[in-house]
Parts: sequence; C-alpha cells; structure tokens
Amino acid sequence: MTSIPAPHFQPVPLEKSYRLINHGPTVLVSSAHEGEVNVMSAAWACALDFSPPKVTVVIDKATRTRALVEGSGAFALCVPSAGLAALTLGVGTDSAVAMPDKLARHGVKTFTAPGHALPLVEGCVAWLACRVIPEPHNQATYDLFIGEVVAAWADQRVFRAGRWAFDGAPDHLRTLHYVAGGQFYATGASLQVGGGD
Amino acid sequence: MTSIPAPHFQPVPLEKSYRLINHGPTVLVSSAHEGEVNVMSAAWACALDFSPPKVTVVIDKATRTRALVEGSGAFALCVPSAGLAALTLGVGTDSAVAMPDKLARHGVKTFTAPGHALPLVEGCVAWLACRVIPEPHNQATYDLFIGEVVAAWADQRVFRAGRWAFDGAPDHLRTLHYVAGGQFYATGASLQVGGGD
Repeated sequence: MTSIPAPHFQPVPLEKSYRLINHGPTVLVSSAHEGEVNVMSAAWACALDFSPPKVTVVIDKATRTRALVEGSGAFALCVPSAGLAALTLGVGTDSAVAMPDKLARHGVKTFTAPGHALPLVEGCVAWLACRVIPEPHNQATYDLFIGEVVAAWADQRVFRAGRWAFDGAPDHLRTLHYVAGGQFYATGASLQVGGGD
Repeated sequence: MTSIPAPHFQPVPLEKSYRLINHGPTVLVSSAHEGEVNVMSAAWACALDFSPPKVTVVIDKATRTRALVEGSGAFALCVPSAGLAALTLGVGTDSAVAMPDKLARHGVKTFTAPGHALPLVEGCVAWLACRVIPEPHNQATYDLFIGEVVAAWADQRVFRAGRWAFDGAPDHLRTLHYVAGGQFYATGASLQVGGGD
C-alpha cells in the first residue's frame, strides 16, 4: 500500500456521507487484518442512519473478507465507477480463499488516507471508512454487519458540495448498480423534483 | 383498494426476486392494518438473502407506516418508476401522522394482487410482498426491519425473463435512485461484463 490518494480525493463531512451510497450503488468492501488486505464487491450495502452515520453490508461467511472484518473490526465501502465494472465483477466472483492473488489478478490497487489504516481502492469515486458495531446475532444469522462511518471521502470531479454531479463529468466516472450475470446499470440522468435543498 | 392490477403486471419467481432491488432503487413501502393503508418512500431498502429471499428496510419510529407494519407483520416494497418521482418525494416528505389524507393528496392509488391482501402502489414497475421476520432488537435500536419475500411481481415491459430491460422501454419506466433535496438519478445505461448468465 502506498499513501498517495488520487488527485481529486477530498474529505466528505460525516453528516453528508450517507449521500455517497443513498442512491444504491454497488460497492467494494475493503479490509485489512494482520498485514492481509482483501477486497470483495457487494450489491447489498445500504445506509442505516444519518447521525452518527451508519451502514449495513452483507458479508458471506465463505468470504476471506469476513475473516478480515471480524478480525479487525473495520471495513471500508468503496464506490466503484463504471470504469471499474470488470474489476468489480472480478473481485465479486473470485474469492481470495481459492485465489490468494486475486487483487493482483484483477488489477486492484489500494491506498490509505492520512490518519486511517484501512485500505481504500484506487479508481473509486467515494470511500466510507467504518468501524463494526458488533451485533453477533445479525452477523451469525444473516451475515449482516452494521458499521459506523468514521470518515468519508469522494472524488470531487463527481461529488462536491454534498451532492453527486455526474452530468458534467465523463461517463466512466458514473457509479454502478449491479443486477446479475455480469449486468450492471450505470447511474443515469439526474431528476430534480421541487427546488432542492 | 381495487383488485385490478396494471395490464403488464406479472409474477416474478421468488428466486429471481432479489434482482428487482439488487441495483439499489429507491422504493415505496406500502402496508395496511385494520383497514388503514399507508405508503412511504425509503431509499434505505436492500436485499439480504437469496433463498428464501429476504430484504432489509429502515422504517423510522415517527412514521405511520411503522405502526402498520408492526401491527400487521407485513409490508410491500414497491419500486417506483421515474414517472412517479414527484409522488415518491411527496410520500417521503409528508407523514400520515400530520396529514391523514396524504395518499390522496399525492395521487397514490393502490391495488391488491390475487391471493394477497397487501396494498401495492399503481404505476410502480416491481413489487415485493414481505412478511416481517421479528427482530425486536434491530427494530428498536436501528429502526431496521427484516422481511422475507413471499411473492413478487414486475411490469413485464421493463422486467422479463428475470432481468431488467430498460433500454428498449420509455424512460419514464426507468427506476429511481434518490440522493437528497429532491434530487434523484434514473437508472442509466446497461453495461454487460463478460458473457452473461
């Protein structure tokens, strides 16, 4: 890991961090424990609360990420852009349990933000660093993890002043919404109802 | 409530029902108890499991929907199309606690599917009927409800053979992804990675 963030990497205030995933994008879950780094994709991640901001994410028992998240008590949700669609499918299909070099094979590079140890995935457009709020029953029964967002960042080319702004940016920076069988939708046209906030 | 579904209303097999919300659309939560029907919008709804299919949804204690869902043990997630953006914002902004006629004011009409009592919102493009799996700690602490999907339907103009097919349909039938302040994104362009399933 290097500590060199992407040039457009900017902090997002915690009270606005829910907006990074409020539109339901597919995410990458990154984690590290005892020197091991892993990344998996997850369509089943969701905001849970505004303040303090919380998220839910489903992490299957069969994944290597599960062990790292349970070991470290932390994970990041990284929001991939359309340019990372193949990477996103790849790290969601292959497991580090069977393919220990899966990050290298799928071209996944990570970096860390100043003051935070969690690996963040390069090329994403938003990142939420989370600490696990232990809920053993949810984890055991539903593979459901609750995290409190402790820091967030976004690529200011597409998220600034607390809002996504895809329409003036290149399409490869739009976020992704996975369906099944390798099919994604990109985040589409903006629709404003009423006067805005 | 009438029992007349929209003309393109077709059942979706339970094992494919997660695909109706896998791409992270904003939903309408509909419920009924003791003759009272209500509908609220929720950006914080997510798939939780494939088989049996389960979902999560956050339903605030201040909402009237909360009382109906806890009273009846059931709710439906209805997936609105872009043509319902103003309605979706309206039923998410106004509460039936303060505005008992909010459904009429926002033009919300509901229907029921044969064999199911839950109200479903007309003009949506997918519907998932769910029974609450009681989890009192999650409900009290996080406003988080877990539901098992017991039936699902979709508008076959945009969902057929187990897949969304927005690209050949009118844009007003695309699903919605809410951000904040009245801003939505429509589900955008399809991206296929690999050969599909």
